[in-house]
Amino acid sequence: MATAAEKEGVVLLDFWVSPFGQRCRIALAEKGVEYEYKEENLIDKSPLLLKMNPIHKKIPVLIHHGKPICESLIIVQYIDEVWSNNPLLPSDPYERAKARFWADFVDKKVYECGTRLWKLKGEAHEEARKDMIEILKLLEGELGDKKYFGGETFGFVDVAVAPFTAWFYTYETCGKFSVDEECLKLAAWAKRCKGRESVSKSVHDPHKVYEFVGKLKKKFGLE
Amino acid sequence: MATAAEKEGVVLLDFWVSPFGQRCRIALAEKGVEYEYKEENLIDKSPLLLKMNPIHKKIPVLIHHGKPICESLIIVQYIDEVWSNNPLLPSDPYERAKARFWADFVDKKVYECGTRLWKLKGEAHEEARKDMIEILKLLEGELGDKKYFGGETFGFVDVAVAPFTAWFYTYETCGKFSVDEECLKLAAWAKRCKGRESVSKSVHDPHKVYEFVGKLKKKFGLE
Repeated sequence: MATAAEKEGVVLLDFWVSPFGQRCRIALAEKGVEYEYKEENLIDKSPLLLKMNPIHKKIPVLIHHGKPICESLIIVQYIDEVWSNNPLLPSDPYERAKARFWADFVDKKVYECGTRLWKLKGEAHEEARKDMIEILKLLEGELGDKKYFGGETFGFVDVAVAPFTAWFYTYETCGKFSVDEECLKLAAWAKRCKGRESVSKSVHDPHKVYEFVGKLKKKFGLE
Repeated sequence: MATAAEKEGVVLLDFWVSPFGQRCRIALAEKGVEYEYKEENLIDKSPLLLKMNPIHKKIPVLIHHGKPICESLIIVQYIDEVWSNNPLLPSDPYERAKARFWADFVDKKVYECGTRLWKLKGEAHEEARKDMIEILKLLEGELGDKKYFGGETFGFVDVAVAPFTAWFYTYETCGKFSVDEECLKLAAWAKRCKGRESVSKSVHDPHKVYEFVGKLKKKFGLE
């Protein structure tokens, strides 16, 4: 008998620690979509990945009935359009634009700054540290006193940011700062996210993320 | 009496040569939306720009009934959602995802590579030249034998790429290659775009773009 994943025809090419991949996992879980998860070896990419994303050759790729969708925010929007239960994007065009703006902000700022934080030393490291705190404060400013970025309901920006909460411990340890102290509301939001099954089953233990970054540092000769 | 632009309540903060601003102008023209155009001085940004885009402090910003929308592709999607005549994005979720993918590809690749092409010298310049030709060939591969990226109708990807056609002359001159020779179909598409009023009235003479880049080069001490 066909499994639920086979019936839906959904496959996700991913890599466990990727915050971009985790966005897709969270969105699929929010919609209750069953899918086949395929872990990629990024040192030796599968022929399937290279065929499905010949332009960027990157995970995540969502394959739906044999057709690939690439780039995490585009995948999340696709999921939101195909499975319309529990909408992630608001219906009002202005609110949609605002949600897209903040998700794009995360894409442009958080990961890049996080990489500088664990890769660089001296002044450049200090600059990355300041930048990260500023980025988190800007995000917190957008969150304000809302329960979620999406308001009362967990939405598009929440999906975009939530995977990075598992990276907070790494950013805090490398940057010697505390999200709890710097951004109380954002820290409380992160705890609320962790309480959702869609997030808790999609992201990994922050200590495992830190261990992974430690291996990367060794690989780049940074320790 | 209120002008059409005042009635619509649409203002665009922009800078004449910006391909990102031109995307917004093309989209507004395709929809037949009247708007007030405000040229920004990027050396001395207006208080309005800093207020409307405090995060990135960049043009273009679309202001609609006093509320700002930032980031060109987000603005174009907003325009497409608010003014639903002449749709730019297709209605099918997979086709929408594909259109978003290629628009995002342009965002990530073309401008950055173009800047390397006029800024760098020696090996790095040669690499930029090769990259640009590859980028244009990939875009041409997606265009294929279609009239527009959107198929029979001018769509989202066409809006995203069209402004760069006014930069082709600069890329060709700095990179010593010919789009006509390297990418015949893309060159023919560029001519079709130029034949549309929405594009011809939104983009500038390629020689004026080249002149502008010449001034930038002087400013950066590259000549």
